[in-house]
Parts: sequence; C-alpha cells; structure tokens
Amino acid sequence: MPHINLPEGLPGIRGPMASRPETAKPLNALAEVLLRSDNSLSRGERELIATYVSSLNDCFFCQNAHGGIAQHYLQCDMPFIDAVKNDFETTPISAKLKALLAIAGSVQKGGKQVTAEQISRAKLLGATDVEIHDTVLIAAAFCMFNRYVDGLGTWAPEDREIYVKRGPRRAEEGYLNFDLYK
Amino acid sequence: MPHINLPEGLPGIRGPMASRPETAKPLNALAEVLLRSDNSLSRGERELIATYVSSLNDCFFCQNAHGGIAQHYLQCDMPFIDAVKNDFETTPISAKLKALLAIAGSVQKGGKQVTAEQISRAKLLGATDVEIHDTVLIAAAFCMFNRYVDGLGTWAPEDREIYVKRGPRRAEEGYLNFDLYK
Repeated sequence: MPHINLPEGLPGIRGPMASRPETAKPLNALAEVLLRSDNSLSRGERELIATYVSSLNDCFFCQNAHGGIAQHYLQCDMPFIDAVKNDFETTPISAKLKALLAIAGSVQKGGKQVTAEQISRAKLLGATDVEIHDTVLIAAAFCMFNRYVDGLGTWAPEDREIYVKRGPRRAEEGYLNFDLYK
Repeated sequence: MPHINLPEGLPGIRGPMASRPETAKPLNALAEVLLRSDNSLSRGERELIATYVSSLNDCFFCQNAHGGIAQHYLQCDMPFIDAVKNDFETTPISAKLKALLAIAGSVQKGGKQVTAEQISRAKLLGATDVEIHDTVLIAAAFCMFNRYVDGLGTWAPEDREIYVKRGPRRAEEGYLNFDLYK
C-alpha cells in the first residue's frame, strides 16, 4: 500500500504524478528533454542509461518501464537488457557507451565518485562534453525518479512482460501530454 | 577543474545550467514549484529539507546555497543550520518538521528506506499527504541536484559567509528567470 493516498490502478510514478500535476509537469519536461530530444546519443542509449541506474537503485518499476522502452528502441530482447544491468562490459554495446555507463554507475553512488579517469576514458572514446553532461544528468535524474517512486511506496505490476509490451506505446507517446490513465 | 568545459566564474549548478539551458529550464521549474510555490510547508522549512539532504550527500555548494536561503527565511544563524544538519532531533524545530526530516533522510539513502513508522509518525503530528509527497520529492530532487553539481566536478566558493550574504537575493529572485551571471 502506498504511503499516501494515490489514485488507484496507476502503476509506479503515474500515481504521484496524477495526484500532484504541479510537480509532474517539470518532471515530465525533464524526462522529455533528457531522453527524447535531439541528441548525438540515441534514444535507446539514453533509455539504457536510465534503465541501468534504476537497476542499481533497485527500482522495479523504473528499470522495467525504461527497460521496455530501451528494448523497443534497440530492437533487442530482455536477456540483453538484463546483461547490460548485470555486467555491461561484457555486452556488445559500443566502447563509448560502456564508458558512459561507468560514469552513470559512479553518479548513482554519489557525484564525487566520478573519476578523472572515467571522464578521460569516455573522451578518448569520442564522448562529447554534452554527452558526458547528459549522462551525468540522466543518472542523477533517475536517482530522483527512483527515490520518488519507492519513497512513496507506489505499486507496480510484477509481470515484466507487461512493460515490454507497453514499450512501443511509451516510446511513441513520449513524456509530455500522455494520458496517465492508459 | 570541472570534468567538462563550463563557463568560467559560475559557481556550482550555475555553470552546467548556463552550458545547457535546455535542461536548466525544467530543473529550475521543478525547484520553483517544490521550494517556492504556495504550500502549507513554509519556504524556510522546504529550504531546510533541501539543505539537510544536500548535507547528507556531502554537496558543499548545495548545502550552503540552500542553507543561506533557509537562514534568510527562518531568520536564524549558521550554527542553527549546522545543528539541524548534525542532529535535528535536538533543535527547536516543530515535531512535524522533525518527522519530515527523518523521512527525507531515509529517501536520501534510498526510496525503500522510508518506513511505515516514519510515515505514521509524520501523520500523527499533522503532516498532510501533500506535505509528505513534497518532502519525499524535495529529498529525491536534491539527490539529483547534488549528483549533478558534484558529478560534473563543478567549482564553488569555499567561504560559507558568501552564501549567507547571497541568501536574501536568492530568496527574492527565485529559481525562474534569474540571471545566471550574477
């Protein structure tokens, strides 16, 4: 049961967002610009960073909701998403994305955990300042979203296939103006 | 030295915000609604929650910038702010605010750390659902802001008095449309 009264039947972040539209608006605007606006990192890569950080924060709703969207964009399967969560260095993603995921993993622990070596590695592999900036902010933002979802004790469907099936619609509708009740 | 190129002379979050206005906009909109919009928690109380969480995250810039604003709103001195950071249960703040700070402290560790007992205590002391919601989201948001500031290795003035002196202007200007270069 959630810690406060929330509209029934809305999974994860959608309950608190429906109950407090004043804060939902900037939260969704932030997700839209970070995860969907034009960027040299693909939408799939950015959703994968969000999924990875949500996994480190053990947030079931976020890691599956964003994992489902990443799976759609990257046209991959659930075992691939799980392999990235468990040990991305062994997966066939680009060396640059590995370097960015390492930075994201440090941000999850705390801002000061990011090392000059991690930054150098990312830059050597072609990461731009904007890509590093956005990786840090995506990771930081999901440390917020994850805490928001779990800190209010929200409910989420347990069947992971549900999130995979919803991925394409979530990817299409984006984070602005979506219908919370669908 | 920051991890990426940032405009010189801008302390803390102001450097990355100036370099990436697309993300600064929703971040500032979120801070404005959480910390300054009409609320049964005073602006001083909300800035104090932000200061406390930033202190737990060891973010020097955020804990002093928001500590300076809290000090202005609450008309208190720096030792009082420091006492709240170090052991708020012994300070002369309201029992309800103590209960909310305890929730914020758990959110800082991780969303699942918030306990039903902490929520019950806050409700018994008069905290509303919106106040609990906003406390969780303020704490979660500062887990983002703190990681953003430190994850990019930003610079901040070391003299804490600077933040106290700037508190009144920061309180007056708010988080929207301020001049980043002042």
